[in-house]
Amino acid sequence: MTTIISFQADQAIPFIKQVRLQNPLVHCITNDVVQNFTANILLAIGASPAMVVAEEEVESFVKIANSLLINIGTIEQSSARSMQLAAHTAMMTKTPWVLDPVAVGEVLTFRTNIAKALLSCYPTVIRGNAAEILTLVGQKSQAKGVDSQDSTEIALEAAKELASQVQTIVAVTGKVDYVTNGQQVYAISGGDIALTRVTGTGCSLSAMVAAFVAATPDDRLTATASACFMMKRAADMAIHQQGLGTFAISLWDQLSLMETIS
Amino acid sequence: MTTIISFQADQAIPFIKQVRLQNPLVHCITNDVVQNFTANILLAIGASPAMVVAEEEVESFVKIANSLLINIGTIEQSSARSMQLAAHTAMMTKTPWVLDPVAVGEVLTFRTNIAKALLSCYPTVIRGNAAEILTLVGQKSQAKGVDSQDSTEIALEAAKELASQVQTIVAVTGKVDYVTNGQQVYAISGGDIALTRVTGTGCSLSAMVAAFVAATPDDRLTATASACFMMKRAADMAIHQQGLGTFAISLWDQLSLMETIS
Amino acid sequence: MTTIISFQADQAIPFIKQVRLQNPLVHCITNDVVQNFTANILLAIGASPAMVVAEEEVESFVKIANSLLINIGTIEQSSARSMQLAAHTAMMTKTPWVLDPVAVGEVLTFRTNIAKALLSCYPTVIRGNAAEILTLVGQKSQAKGVDSQDSTEIALEAAKELASQVQTIVAVTGKVDYVTNGQQVYAISGGDIALTRVTGTGCSLSAMVAAFVAATPDDRLTATASACFMMKRAADMAIHQQGLGTFAISLWDQLSLMETIS
Repeated sequence: MTTIISFQADQAIPFIKQVRLQNPLVHCITNDVVQNFTANILLAIGASPAMVVAEEEVESFVKIANSLLINIGTIEQSSARSMQLAAHTAMMTKTPWVLDPVAVGEVLTFRTNIAKALLSCYPTVIRGNAAEILTLVGQKSQAKGVDSQDSTEIALEAAKELASQVQTIVAVTGKVDYVTNGQQVYAISGGDIALTRVTGTGCSLSAMVAAFVAATPDDRLTATASACFMMKRAADMAIHQQGLGTFAISLWDQLSLMETIS
Repeated sequence: MTTIISFQADQAIPFIKQVRLQNPLVHCITNDVVQNFTANILLAIGASPAMVVAEEEVESFVKIANSLLINIGTIEQSSARSMQLAAHTAMMTKTPWVLDPVAVGEVLTFRTNIAKALLSCYPTVIRGNAAEILTLVGQKSQAKGVDSQDSTEIALEAAKELASQVQTIVAVTGKVDYVTNGQQVYAISGGDIALTRVTGTGCSLSAMVAAFVAATPDDRLTATASACFMMKRAADMAIHQQGLGTFAISLWDQLSLMETIS
Repeated sequence: MTTIISFQADQAIPFIKQVRLQNPLVHCITNDVVQNFTANILLAIGASPAMVVAEEEVESFVKIANSLLINIGTIEQSSARSMQLAAHTAMMTKTPWVLDPVAVGEVLTFRTNIAKALLSCYPTVIRGNAAEILTLVGQKSQAKGVDSQDSTEIALEAAKELASQVQTIVAVTGKVDYVTNGQQVYAISGGDIALTRVTGTGCSLSAMVAAFVAATPDDRLTATASACFMMKRAADMAIHQQGLGTFAISLWDQLSLMETIS
């Protein structure tokens, strides 16, 4: 049996600092709902976002980026082609890349097939909710739409299996986040239910993971767990009692202030 | 002559609560300017937004969604095809759907023709400003662009006519909102001029209407009026004196706090 | 040698007031990351934004708009066609238009070629960072991605050359903004480093310039400098110590409050 290690603040702090020091350029091909929030969250943690989506441009840009994020939330034919081209280039150039397989499942077969095909380009990290991770290993879930009904525990074995199969790191996130390379498992707790009620927090976490694995290539498992930790800790520190608008802005504030280098 | 009934808080409250209880899944095909705000407003009122736009996916998704929103604000050829497919599927599956005919009028004939064609799929509700509603019944307005110069009163007869013709509910919104099924008319007052100076408040109201008619199918006229009431009341309660940024975040806060079930 | 004139508040104030009085309709074809923020900033300063992007609609809309913004940040084949059509229509109808050549440079040749081709439609103003302006006159820069590493001083001669070649106004913005028509040069200082850490502040400034040149056609050089001044002054007045989320909302607040006509 795998031991699950509870991930601690002191492990995350040097990784959070490295992102601020390295200022990694993160090439994002992400969904239309979260582009602005994702760019702002990357800037807040000290990374440089660049949303480059044209088929004519993605190959060139992956080559100069420090990492790539592919999020299929509002995928269409043309963006699907850009994603495939970008992922393939990332594999060839050994650029680390993160897959966020938003809403894969039985209902949306178009994106599900594309997400599965993208696995052949060996994502460095896959970040999803329980339903999405279950889908990628061929299991069923109860999810409808983008919000998973499943707790993360039930997808832990699937996450390990997926990580082993694709030689990747899988972060299955929810009330407790689990981050695994198939052997080791980190558990990150904390955070707040309000995170599920602000759009783009999961998508932005995937972007943060891309920044972290770019900044600290030696230990990508800890880097991924550190990104998860940073989001949960920022949520803990954000203002809760004034409503979701204030929470969202306060979350952004907290991410921008955490471990800033003075 | 039609009696105009002034809509009251006690009518809206049970409908607002039902949205939080039912957590309806709202399939949104909306414009690029407001996707993030719309998703956040739907989450704030207790609904589940899902932006699914690919031609390959809209049919499957309408079938599992509790309602559909079509907003033509940044319509293009490919999104137009998805909208037509989604609206047709909604009609066939009796999924309630809301049309927001952004900026229809003499200048933008491409979208105006598409919006008129969409009427044949029998939208459950049409939510627009005065100029847009006048356009849909073939009358002229003074509007240029997306912001209507007309007061809602001058479109009230057009709203009733449109509601009768298409067997739908029409919400014509502005300083006073009118909601009609062709016979009954509710008037909702309150709100604030600042609502017209934050982008996406009208578009998000249309999304809220989609959530309300999904959660309370027995009385869609009252459901639509309740959504209008909720937006106006939240604007009344939001912080005004600190500028439009604070107003927008405070509006989001108020929507998230109103009639929360503890 | 050109004298550089330090731009002062008393020059900007009447121009800021004119935007509020004229309420110009600004047709925006801009990137997916900043559409919401751009629309909100235009509303905050008293302009009317309209995002109209379909090839079928841009010609008609340029004809009724008071100005046009073209921002190539997330350009693709279909948006490129709309941009070319819109810019050509603006030239033919003498509608003032602003080009924001986001991320042009050696890496992204697709957009760079399109941006250079758009120069033949005589933009009224070009607003960019140092690297972008250097690229448009055929010089190299050190930039990767969208964030320029160069200080604006090193692009001042290039800005003057570009302004003379294309008979346009060039605003090269950064720590100090320079605005030139090839002969005169205004320098605008102030602002805050936080502006570079909130996405869309540069893109929104380009949209503000479009509003200013529409509202005050007699002196477009001063109008452009006034827009730059307004953004820097709002940043000076915004809340800094609470993090980037609060800064962004406070910047929006300050823009909405500055020189409001009571």
